[in-house]
Amino acid sequence: MNTDKIHLSIEQVYALSLDVLSRNGFSPEHASAIARTITAAQRDDCQSHGMYRLIGCVRTLQSGLVSPSALPVITHPTAAVVQVDAQRAYSLLAFQEGLPHLVEKTRRNGVAVLAINNCFHFSALWPEVEAIAQHGLAAVAMTPSHSWVAPAGGTRPVFGTNPLAFAWPRPGPYPYVFDFATSMVARGEIELHRRTGRPIPQGWAIDAEGRPTTDAAAGMAGAMLTFGSYKGSALSTMIELLAGPLIGDWTSMQSQAFDAGKGGAPLHGELLIALDPDILGRGMAPANAQAAEAMLDAINGQGARLPSERRFKARAKSEEEGLWVGRALHDEILSLAGTA
Amino acid sequence: MNTDKIHLSIEQVYALSLDVLSRNGFSPEHASAIARTITAAQRDDCQSHGMYRLIGCVRTLQSGLVSPSALPVITHPTAAVVQVDAQRAYSLLAFQEGLPHLVEKTRRNGVAVLAINNCFHFSALWPEVEAIAQHGLAAVAMTPSHSWVAPAGGTRPVFGTNPLAFAWPRPGPYPYVFDFATSMVARGEIELHRRTGRPIPQGWAIDAEGRPTTDAAAGMAGAMLTFGSYKGSALSTMIELLAGPLIGDWTSMQSQAFDAGKGGAPLHGELLIALDPDILGRGMAPANAQAAEAMLDAINGQGARLPSERRFKARAKSEEEGLWVGRALHDEILSLAGTA
Repeated sequence: MNTDKIHLSIEQVYALSLDVLSRNGFSPEHASAIARTITAAQRDDCQSHGMYRLIGCVRTLQSGLVSPSALPVITHPTAAVVQVDAQRAYSLLAFQEGLPHLVEKTRRNGVAVLAINNCFHFSALWPEVEAIAQHGLAAVAMTPSHSWVAPAGGTRPVFGTNPLAFAWPRPGPYPYVFDFATSMVARGEIELHRRTGRPIPQGWAIDAEGRPTTDAAAGMAGAMLTFGSYKGSALSTMIELLAGPLIGDWTSMQSQAFDAGKGGAPLHGELLIALDPDILGRGMAPANAQAAEAMLDAINGQGARLPSERRFKARAKSEEEGLWVGRALHDEILSLAGTA
Repeated sequence: MNTDKIHLSIEQVYALSLDVLSRNGFSPEHASAIARTITAAQRDDCQSHGMYRLIGCVRTLQSGLVSPSALPVITHPTAAVVQVDAQRAYSLLAFQEGLPHLVEKTRRNGVAVLAINNCFHFSALWPEVEAIAQHGLAAVAMTPSHSWVAPAGGTRPVFGTNPLAFAWPRPGPYPYVFDFATSMVARGEIELHRRTGRPIPQGWAIDAEGRPTTDAAAGMAGAMLTFGSYKGSALSTMIELLAGPLIGDWTSMQSQAFDAGKGGAPLHGELLIALDPDILGRGMAPANAQAAEAMLDAINGQGARLPSERRFKARAKSEEEGLWVGRALHDEILSLAGTA
């Protein structure tokens, strides 16, 4: 028996997460929205977005910046747009409340937008585009973050790590899903190298003078780089504009200025666009879906993995067998719940 | 005096292009739509999409595949979607006819889609997103092409060169615009290396066995690679799905199968999404536009060029002074017009 690890069911992960969040002051609505997302990440073996996040979540709450209870305010600027003001709470409840409106508007119009404003960043974007795809819709999501990333050819940070996520509905339980940062790697990856004293590969970051560096600390103090050179840089610019000024929210530079060195989570907006294959597909939705499957099979059939495949395998396993959590992490979480 | 080159005004470029296209059988509607785009490219010093294209254009018409006169058929599936069937003509007239509907629907709904179907590929996407941005809207455009590009980790072609273009309206004459292929380079770039017997850099292509190659001919026979490794590959997958099956049109594999080795232009769909900053901007459009400018200035201010900058400089120069065209090209075009 491995006594370094604790076995939990998915239900137990959810219950424990909900308990920790509730006891630390989150309102029932926020606690359940956050617990649901943390559970999904833990279930999919995304450790960095799983139960580990509870610790940061409670700490951030104690800083007093994030509202533990503000209710999202929903407005309907047009028949194809739903806008949700998260009122400086985490983004998840705002998404949850906006989702049914987005689905309904997309089904009616073929395309619709959900703009979330004024939210503190929480978690990856894949749970959100996946949730939209479960309604048979295609979805794109993006957010700015803090200005940590330099444009291609530049020397100083302008962009956030600006993730882009996409989902396409497929037959069976799992959609096609990707969710990637437009920075070369996640910021936590460089921080991990710094903490363990390892050099970072060329191309991840530049130092404060704008020179290429393999020194993780110098890279943290300088700027990260985008993936894919000037194309990744252009994509990141698009995300700044569409999930920032377009929807009346902040660029990564503005979020960074607001944070003023406190090291808090980005305060920002999120843009989600949903598209309905039934309306846009010229009356041929089943044949269109088949063509999509043939294309995805051609990728899979030559051994090139589809993104999220690892996640879906972990999910199937967790749903079958439950999952294991490190004892140290589990103990720390119990102590947050005041039940250790 | 440089007698290898001919000086033309922008108006002369347009008149000559229109003349060549009309004399070779394009209907007045198609001839003017194509001439306008060719003139814009020549004006912006995009040689490969400029007057040089007239030669391929006439040749393709002689192959009998592309309709020289089919009128686009416009339908309105919903209040936020306009769909244009190009009826196997070039895409440009379909875009031109769809544009006013897209603008009107976006202004009413905050977001709208223009789906162009059943068109032969013509030219870059930047003239189209730029035209949308001139109406004060943000725009995204994408198309599949022929299956020439392998997925990351794969060995065989699945994707097209799948361009993604974006425009954001700015004060002054020029919007922020990018337009890039999701393949590492344009296919013509590899072909140019093959013709001149030069090796291609690592990372551009793999051979027919899926091995990395620096041999341009082997790369043409094998598969091109995407930019940005698995992230670029994911982006290309998204473009296949959204500008293909979503809108009832073909994937690059289907376009390739239809072409059956004839080497014609891709027959495909195009997806354009437009977004209105006035509707989505929470009543703060001027301040939002300022924040966008501050972000773009932060890129520019550190010497990192914005995409399209070179093009806009060339445009200003052409508008001021006219432009120069190689005499050999000019002679060939005159002979196409039967006036040489």
